[in-house]
Amino acid sequence: MTQRPLRFGLIGTGRIGQVHAVNIAASPDAELTWIADPFLDGARSVAARHGGAVTDDAERLLTSGEIDAVLVASPTPTHVDLIARSVDLGLPVLCEKPIDLDIARVDALRARVAAAGVPVALGFNRRFDPAFRSVRDRVAAGEIGELEQLTIISRDPAAPPADYVAVSGGIFRDMTIHDFDMARSFLPDIVEVSAVGSAVFDDGARRHGDFDTAVVTLRAASGAVVTIINSRHSAYGYDQRLEAFGARGALSVANAPTSLVSLSTSAHVEAKPPYENFFLERYAAAYRAELEQFIALARGEDSTSPGFEDGRAALLLADAALRSAEERRVVAVDLRA
Amino acid sequence: MTQRPLRFGLIGTGRIGQVHAVNIAASPDAELTWIADPFLDGARSVAARHGGAVTDDAERLLTSGEIDAVLVASPTPTHVDLIARSVDLGLPVLCEKPIDLDIARVDALRARVAAAGVPVALGFNRRFDPAFRSVRDRVAAGEIGELEQLTIISRDPAAPPADYVAVSGGIFRDMTIHDFDMARSFLPDIVEVSAVGSAVFDDGARRHGDFDTAVVTLRAASGAVVTIINSRHSAYGYDQRLEAFGARGALSVANAPTSLVSLSTSAHVEAKPPYENFFLERYAAAYRAELEQFIALARGEDSTSPGFEDGRAALLLADAALRSAEERRVVAVDLRA
Amino acid sequence: MTQRPLRFGLIGTGRIGQVHAVNIAASPDAELTWIADPFLDGARSVAARHGGAVTDDAERLLTSGEIDAVLVASPTPTHVDLIARSVDLGLPVLCEKPIDLDIARVDALRARVAAAGVPVALGFNRRFDPAFRSVRDRVAAGEIGELEQLTIISRDPAAPPADYVAVSGGIFRDMTIHDFDMARSFLPDIVEVSAVGSAVFDDGARRHGDFDTAVVTLRAASGAVVTIINSRHSAYGYDQRLEAFGARGALSVANAPTSLVSLSTSAHVEAKPPYENFFLERYAAAYRAELEQFIALARGEDSTSPGFEDGRAALLLADAALRSAEERRVVAVDLRA
Amino acid sequence: MTQRPLRFGLIGTGRIGQVHAVNIAASPDAELTWIADPFLDGARSVAARHGGAVTDDAERLLTSGEIDAVLVASPTPTHVDLIARSVDLGLPVLCEKPIDLDIARVDALRARVAAAGVPVALGFNRRFDPAFRSVRDRVAAGEIGELEQLTIISRDPAAPPADYVAVSGGIFRDMTIHDFDMARSFLPDIVEVSAVGSAVFDDGARRHGDFDTAVVTLRAASGAVVTIINSRHSAYGYDQRLEAFGARGALSVANAPTSLVSLSTSAHVEAKPPYENFFLERYAAAYRAELEQFIALARGEDSTSPGFEDGRAALLLADAALRSAEERRVVAVDLRA
Repeated sequence: MTQRPLRFGLIGTGRIGQVHAVNIAASPDAELTWIADPFLDGARSVAARHGGAVTDDAERLLTSGEIDAVLVASPTPTHVDLIARSVDLGLPVLCEKPIDLDIARVDALRARVAAAGVPVALGFNRRFDPAFRSVRDRVAAGEIGELEQLTIISRDPAAPPADYVAVSGGIFRDMTIHDFDMARSFLPDIVEVSAVGSAVFDDGARRHGDFDTAVVTLRAASGAVVTIINSRHSAYGYDQRLEAFGARGALSVANAPTSLVSLSTSAHVEAKPPYENFFLERYAAAYRAELEQFIALARGEDSTSPGFEDGRAALLLADAALRSAEERRVVAVDLRA
Repeated sequence: MTQRPLRFGLIGTGRIGQVHAVNIAASPDAELTWIADPFLDGARSVAARHGGAVTDDAERLLTSGEIDAVLVASPTPTHVDLIARSVDLGLPVLCEKPIDLDIARVDALRARVAAAGVPVALGFNRRFDPAFRSVRDRVAAGEIGELEQLTIISRDPAAPPADYVAVSGGIFRDMTIHDFDMARSFLPDIVEVSAVGSAVFDDGARRHGDFDTAVVTLRAASGAVVTIINSRHSAYGYDQRLEAFGARGALSVANAPTSLVSLSTSAHVEAKPPYENFFLERYAAAYRAELEQFIALARGEDSTSPGFEDGRAALLLADAALRSAEERRVVAVDLRA
Repeated sequence: MTQRPLRFGLIGTGRIGQVHAVNIAASPDAELTWIADPFLDGARSVAARHGGAVTDDAERLLTSGEIDAVLVASPTPTHVDLIARSVDLGLPVLCEKPIDLDIARVDALRARVAAAGVPVALGFNRRFDPAFRSVRDRVAAGEIGELEQLTIISRDPAAPPADYVAVSGGIFRDMTIHDFDMARSFLPDIVEVSAVGSAVFDDGARRHGDFDTAVVTLRAASGAVVTIINSRHSAYGYDQRLEAFGARGALSVANAPTSLVSLSTSAHVEAKPPYENFFLERYAAAYRAELEQFIALARGEDSTSPGFEDGRAALLLADAALRSAEERRVVAVDLRA
Repeated sequence: MTQRPLRFGLIGTGRIGQVHAVNIAASPDAELTWIADPFLDGARSVAARHGGAVTDDAERLLTSGEIDAVLVASPTPTHVDLIARSVDLGLPVLCEKPIDLDIARVDALRARVAAAGVPVALGFNRRFDPAFRSVRDRVAAGEIGELEQLTIISRDPAAPPADYVAVSGGIFRDMTIHDFDMARSFLPDIVEVSAVGSAVFDDGARRHGDFDTAVVTLRAASGAVVTIINSRHSAYGYDQRLEAFGARGALSVANAPTSLVSLSTSAHVEAKPPYENFFLERYAAAYRAELEQFIALARGEDSTSPGFEDGRAALLLADAALRSAEERRVVAVDLRA
């Protein structure tokens, strides 16, 4: 790579922002030049480790003239304005999901993004996981014949605090949204959504009218059926599995082992240590690949980054799932409209 | 066991009838004394191997005075009448599923069975599979805490002939009915059914307005959610898995290996031979245990045999699933009514 | 099969004798007509379940004129005489291993057996296990290229009583002898033996100068190397594994699971119940196949039964292993002499 | 960590030298200040990526006054002199294995190293692999009771070129040496060595009187028995397994999967992609941990680095194995002498 590194402005230095900062700093193709966070100490702490100028004002970063691309890792309510401002300034932007919790605001931004012609990528990190990507590529290559069923089991280690639940937009927009995007990475054209939610263990979810347990069924235009099984907790660690079932066989993604060691005793055999508890560890490689693909996108090269339309489609599916669960019926969607 | 063997009259000598004949003959607690089949050669062939008098008239068998119990393995349309006649004669009966494809006929029989006080068992063989039974027992013992999600993956090796599809009652009544009963063996009180069906590969299903692919979601009164994933074919063999997920962990049933051997080469590692292709092999132990439990039931001993009400409940769920798939909405059920 | 069943005389009604009695009774090609045991109640108990005349005198059985074949399941010291008498009488014989603990007695019998031309089979049951047989067949078919290494892990659930150890002939003749035969079923022509023994946990072994732990290395004429790893105990159940390693890959036999169920909790994931504790359960199918192949042998049909020479070869290897362990050197053997 | 980074002089910039350079550069506790290689372009290339002054003369590096520690990754024949010079200069040294192929040269160095009191660590990277380390820790914690058997299967993906075989010192000193050290990390006090070698596929090995296939049995002072199974090739990738067997159970290390994906078709089920082909990938984490522990050692902190005596012991065992294979007898060793 003989090009000079892409200069990044990072907005937001929370948990995810820090992950991106580490990856930008480690990439030979990227450089961290500006960091913005209203909580200025957060920005300073990241700058101390990875370099870059700091500001508490994202506008200062965007207009610095010293960045080639923007990475938006700030709270969800800020996403729409930051994407809008970035594309207006001609700056490619990688924005954490979701675009917004309100589809009206997303739709209002849609035409502007399309008109700007500036690359916008959405942070659906799981698309870049080597295992999921491999299954997608092998399915596309016809290894299991026509894809008939896709089953996604996705369970978080522990339910979020009730405060977070209150502003999360609900399980479908906050958690299942990743699975909607994963489903669409196999079957982009989803036409029907059917969702069942339940609050079986989490008082926070119950109090806020949210679910802690959900099953969503999607039908693709091809007739293929997707099943998404979610729980907000999992005693044995972060549970992230997928099975693509086709006419000629199945490709499955198992949970990531945390060790190669297994134990056999008189109590049980071949017992392994619990899975990772933390999504940043499970998806460390995915975050790196996500950044790499965004850099390619920003440079006008071939890229597999999911874009604005993918972000909008996932939100449409989440909204449809919520409506389905509330109205207890199948909801039709048209993601191509 | 010092009791004399239970004398069985077997009605129907097709594939399943033959399995039961073998198990009756092999059991020290059972004896095959009468065999009825309108296709008399079938009855004669079974008698030649396992003993018993033969007739082409089930009534002759039922009134022979030489049987203590009836095993109904004849075609579905005959079940209601044979159960009715058996209980009228005071003969305990083990009837293959389903009771009937028409819930009205089942309901018409219901009061008569209840009034007779004669044991009626339904042939939901999978309940007796050692693996599923073990999970059920361990869940009941609290090993994984409160049961929150139950996931059943059930795929047949190959789609049935179109002729069979035409009279099968549809995938929910013919195939999913086993999974409905399995779900109820964990969570008897199902209150809602939501089903999605698709015909993605089988012309027979398509032609007869049936599905070859289905996903059914059930909600239990407890709030627990059951997901059933079905396909009428499976390239890698009979696919029969289950996962019980609870607050403290999960218990999973894997597919039955056909060999302990695995192969590692430059192409792939730890590759095992395909699974069983045939339900009779996969569930051989289950059929034996089913008979054993029915004998206990007939003798008035403790038994885990599913009864008439279980057979009716499974059919109600199948009917609800069909309605849900057709009307594209959640269907409420009341199995206790 | 239109031939009439082979009439068996069973000598010895201990644990193994009973297994054979069950299998003979269950086989359509065999019939149990005579049973001999000095402990007459043992013989009577077997006869009550499976039929046959009883005697406390094996000679009475052998000369009854009512048997076509002999199954020798009596104590080891009786084997040589019973084989000799059987072949003299022209009766095919299936004898439990070993032929004898003393190679001199075996050699003295050798010419007589060869001259008689009467089929003699040795009860190396593991050869008939479906998994081991499958690996052998696939290796022979060239699936992993030239066989270079064979690794056998064989551990019993629990050490035998000290009394038994005292008369067992030592671990190599008593336990490893099965593994020697297994090795020879892949690589018949073993030329060198190197053995290390240790008594690390069993006082019985220590007291009688025996080992409870052993590793034996064999070299085949082809240059292939066999490793046998033994222990007299195994906390997690009967441990019976094998790996055939060749130029193009490996075929492995895993331990037999006792259940398809696995448990995942915060303590461990994918934990399965312990393995079988008992060889009769692990090798139930093998014992049935062994009988089947012996019947074929007795009838002059194609058979895979190991014969007298195989029994002698295994004992030669056991003797060589003992010498190797004692003299702390490699011992050359010539099994073709 | 408030200490300033340890300044490293790296000698040798081949494959392993480059791995160490990357890890030193990535460590907050280390800095690469000097790089020596007679092939100066190699040194320059490393310096360009990771910094440091370059020289073609190791003495220049050692006497620069700008290094706190030495990392020796040059060819084996240079190790003894470089260790000697380093300790004379008071510089802690991490030297790749083996110390030398000639035990006489190692012994000549031994007193000098001991007298110098300067930390010397040997590059037995596998000790630092998280899986092996975890088993060792759990065995030490008593999880499987007294350790009775240790089984190490170690197979390289492909045989080295014949030229390399010629100067490698033979399979025991070149390849098994890692396994000897691994064995000693569990059971330091090995007292007997018994080895069998064979050349079954590699002409290079055959031509140079070396083996491509080997099995080594070690006896520890405790009576525990170690089995090491080696091959110079493995069709399915780098094969690195271990099983610690004790009175209360076993701890096993499986091969590292390269993917979480498995495939099931009509040909086979649960088939995974082949294992890593390259030791640098398999042991990437181990190399990082090795460096970390050496830094601790150099700073006088607690460290698990194997030292000079461990390097000498592994070579003694390799020599004993060669003698055992040649003289076809057990060879006693005294590693404490």
